[in-house]
Amino acid sequence: MQAFWSEILGTATLILLGAGVVANVILPRTKGFDGGWLLINFGWGLAVFAGVFTAYKSGAHLNPAVTIGLYTADLPFATLTGPEGRVTATIEPTVSNMFIYFAAEMIGAIIGAVLAFLVYKKHFDQEAPGATKLAVFSTGPELRSYGWNFITEVVATFVLVFFVVVSGKSPSGLGPLAVALIVVGIGASLGGPTGYAINPARDLGPRIAHAFLPIKGKGSSDWAYAWVPVAGPLVGGVLAGLLGAAYS
Amino acid sequence: MQAFWSEILGTATLILLGAGVVANVILPRTKGFDGGWLLINFGWGLAVFAGVFTAYKSGAHLNPAVTIGLYTADLPFATLTGPEGRVTATIEPTVSNMFIYFAAEMIGAIIGAVLAFLVYKKHFDQEAPGATKLAVFSTGPELRSYGWNFITEVVATFVLVFFVVVSGKSPSGLGPLAVALIVVGIGASLGGPTGYAINPARDLGPRIAHAFLPIKGKGSSDWAYAWVPVAGPLVGGVLAGLLGAAYS
Amino acid sequence: MQAFWSEILGTATLILLGAGVVANVILPRTKGFDGGWLLINFGWGLAVFAGVFTAYKSGAHLNPAVTIGLYTADLPFATLTGPEGRVTATIEPTVSNMFIYFAAEMIGAIIGAVLAFLVYKKHFDQEAPGATKLAVFSTGPELRSYGWNFITEVVATFVLVFFVVVSGKSPSGLGPLAVALIVVGIGASLGGPTGYAINPARDLGPRIAHAFLPIKGKGSSDWAYAWVPVAGPLVGGVLAGLLGAAYS
Amino acid sequence: MQAFWSEILGTATLILLGAGVVANVILPRTKGFDGGWLLINFGWGLAVFAGVFTAYKSGAHLNPAVTIGLYTADLPFATLTGPEGRVTATIEPTVSNMFIYFAAEMIGAIIGAVLAFLVYKKHFDQEAPGATKLAVFSTGPELRSYGWNFITEVVATFVLVFFVVVSGKSPSGLGPLAVALIVVGIGASLGGPTGYAINPARDLGPRIAHAFLPIKGKGSSDWAYAWVPVAGPLVGGVLAGLLGAAYS
Repeated sequence: MQAFWSEILGTATLILLGAGVVANVILPRTKGFDGGWLLINFGWGLAVFAGVFTAYKSGAHLNPAVTIGLYTADLPFATLTGPEGRVTATIEPTVSNMFIYFAAEMIGAIIGAVLAFLVYKKHFDQEAPGATKLAVFSTGPELRSYGWNFITEVVATFVLVFFVVVSGKSPSGLGPLAVALIVVGIGASLGGPTGYAINPARDLGPRIAHAFLPIKGKGSSDWAYAWVPVAGPLVGGVLAGLLGAAYS
Repeated sequence: MQAFWSEILGTATLILLGAGVVANVILPRTKGFDGGWLLINFGWGLAVFAGVFTAYKSGAHLNPAVTIGLYTADLPFATLTGPEGRVTATIEPTVSNMFIYFAAEMIGAIIGAVLAFLVYKKHFDQEAPGATKLAVFSTGPELRSYGWNFITEVVATFVLVFFVVVSGKSPSGLGPLAVALIVVGIGASLGGPTGYAINPARDLGPRIAHAFLPIKGKGSSDWAYAWVPVAGPLVGGVLAGLLGAAYS
Repeated sequence: MQAFWSEILGTATLILLGAGVVANVILPRTKGFDGGWLLINFGWGLAVFAGVFTAYKSGAHLNPAVTIGLYTADLPFATLTGPEGRVTATIEPTVSNMFIYFAAEMIGAIIGAVLAFLVYKKHFDQEAPGATKLAVFSTGPELRSYGWNFITEVVATFVLVFFVVVSGKSPSGLGPLAVALIVVGIGASLGGPTGYAINPARDLGPRIAHAFLPIKGKGSSDWAYAWVPVAGPLVGGVLAGLLGAAYS
Repeated sequence: MQAFWSEILGTATLILLGAGVVANVILPRTKGFDGGWLLINFGWGLAVFAGVFTAYKSGAHLNPAVTIGLYTADLPFATLTGPEGRVTATIEPTVSNMFIYFAAEMIGAIIGAVLAFLVYKKHFDQEAPGATKLAVFSTGPELRSYGWNFITEVVATFVLVFFVVVSGKSPSGLGPLAVALIVVGIGASLGGPTGYAINPARDLGPRIAHAFLPIKGKGSSDWAYAWVPVAGPLVGGVLAGLLGAAYS
């Protein structure tokens, strides 16, 4: 139960800061307007950094692709330690735990998106294309091609989850800084075609928020694309779990 | 008493470097002119880094929102260790200590702002709008709306202080790099609407300095806005103290 | 044998992310288009970071210049430790091991380049000069002068390999972050003339991939230049091995 | 004697990478041309990072302002440890040792500047203003005012050396990453007016190299300004040594 709250809080932090940096770079009349791709990469990386610190009671997956990757590799979801550093509990990779994590990650992502909307409320009230306002919430490809976009998300997520499986048992075990830097790197290198969802909750949660929030002049939530940043990362996570377990 | 000086020195370092990077990016004829939002984010983050190292004798709050957050969570303001790593003293979270910290942080912030003014004196002597010169000292919103600006400051400060309360007992306990990176992240992600004061002393101290310093062609110190970056961070800090104590 | 796979996987990760960031910055219609040199530097640095974590079973050379430098300095290629941190095996710097590493690095580099091509497939399908498409794969000088380009590569590689030899026995021994940051620094400082191959496999492997991949509208693979980013780094690595061994 | 070589090598590394990043950003037809102030800040910071790692046998001052600051604070110049971490030797802060460090730092700085010239030789051969070519080697103010420029250098160097004195006994004791990040921060925040020499050897050594190197179309070495980035940092270093010793 504590892990459930931990995962919600951590994912909410992730999306608040992650959606926030995109809002800062693309919405009208912000301080960071047109601040560049590296700013977005660092913003998302440090969103992961803050989220992993926050969610230390659940192993800080923050991402169904990580959860399914650890499940596939048969690795514990979290190893909790007491004040003297001794292991006090382990969260086992069962199917029911997996769905509890999925639920917490989705709830957290929706909460984070709502908070980011509130922080940037006056900027959402400005005139801007509907696609720009959606882009604060969810990813979209620069060149739409479901097959290739899917491949991009599979590969990018594979890099993340393979890293987690091989280097540490969970993101909080690997260390927040290492995971944050890997996410900066994946964004810089593999984010060019689709905007690197690499996390089903990161994309679907905010897309749901976009659908129900009273955003001025909002356009379509682009549900036609929504399956790609869900299926791609899940497939990437499973592959990384399989190969990571074989390798390490 | 040592903690009082420590907090003054640390906050002065914070504001010297923090106001400095803004001066570098927005004042005329500097090397870093128009250097971008990420430069400002790293400048402020590393200002925190330097300030936290400096103020190791006081737990390095550097920020009344952190002080009030630790007070609310009933956590010690600082835990001091001797050469062998043993705890030699603890600064308790009492009301009187809280006001001593507030005073030191304000004094340090004013000193830091004066030093930044001296470092960039020749650039302040150049022609520039009064609002630009004020922006070196204090924050101001891109879209003025006291209510929404307040909310933005509450949320952004909550992220910072929750992080401090949950992850370490004080910024120096958590480690200077972690706090610095969180501040980079908050700036990148949540700084777009108001310029992320997230610290009453960081905003009010330099605003006072702006009011009394002989700045060529200076305009209004914008006192009408001054309550937002004081009240917002204090409220955010209290909320983070309450929820952080409940969570951890 | 495990080291062979480790080195392949690590170098593939390096090139996937390294070629990826260049694609993101220079290919048409990417999210990171025209993102600047610092984005490229961080992208490559974090590619090293990910690669070194991945290849922990082989010391994570990822680079024939590192391999030949360690060979010259008579340092072990890798020191492997068991779960309790005890040394369980050492890979000796023999000539045959050196060529096994060379082979693994080349294979990994080619695989990484193919993966980067797949990730950016739709962007390679866009109209762009052949030289731009080649630049995703391999380096090329801004001012062609084989002699001076060679010197630039020798010096830049010397800095990298000297660092490895003096500070740690192999990149994974030195720590992924330190090596990553050094590569960011070398790129920022010494990458201006030639694009800092500083690694024969990083340049030759992707150039081979460029030659055989079905890239739309691809031009020459510029084989005339190909010897510089192979010979320069090897010479730099040997010099760094000699001087590093004498110094440390 | 070993420390002498160490300090030469470290300072040469510092200037090679530091002058290199400036060359990359301002000389014609480089990959990093017009790459921005943050690129320069990271370039210099990582130059410090590489230099501190290299010069571990001498405490890695790399900077007469650090040397004079440690001398003023009566702190050892270096504490050397054997393989088991035990202290094996200490370099005492005597006047003669101080001048030996000064000499090594100057020699290293000149060597580094010559190497940077060789790396960018073809770019120095391009048409560019003499002041641009000088700026690769030495600092110059944006607004010339010897008094205010001096103050800027005093304050900026004070921040660096106070940090070294308070946080660690020498840069290598404090850790290369911490020193590197502080230098990034000082550059971002206080480098705007004068280009942050903050190190007499960093400015005077390359200026001497500029005077004797056969640089095509070079202009004046601007000796009139040369005293500012020497005297300012030395004064800042002494003040930081005095106050740092009193504080810590």
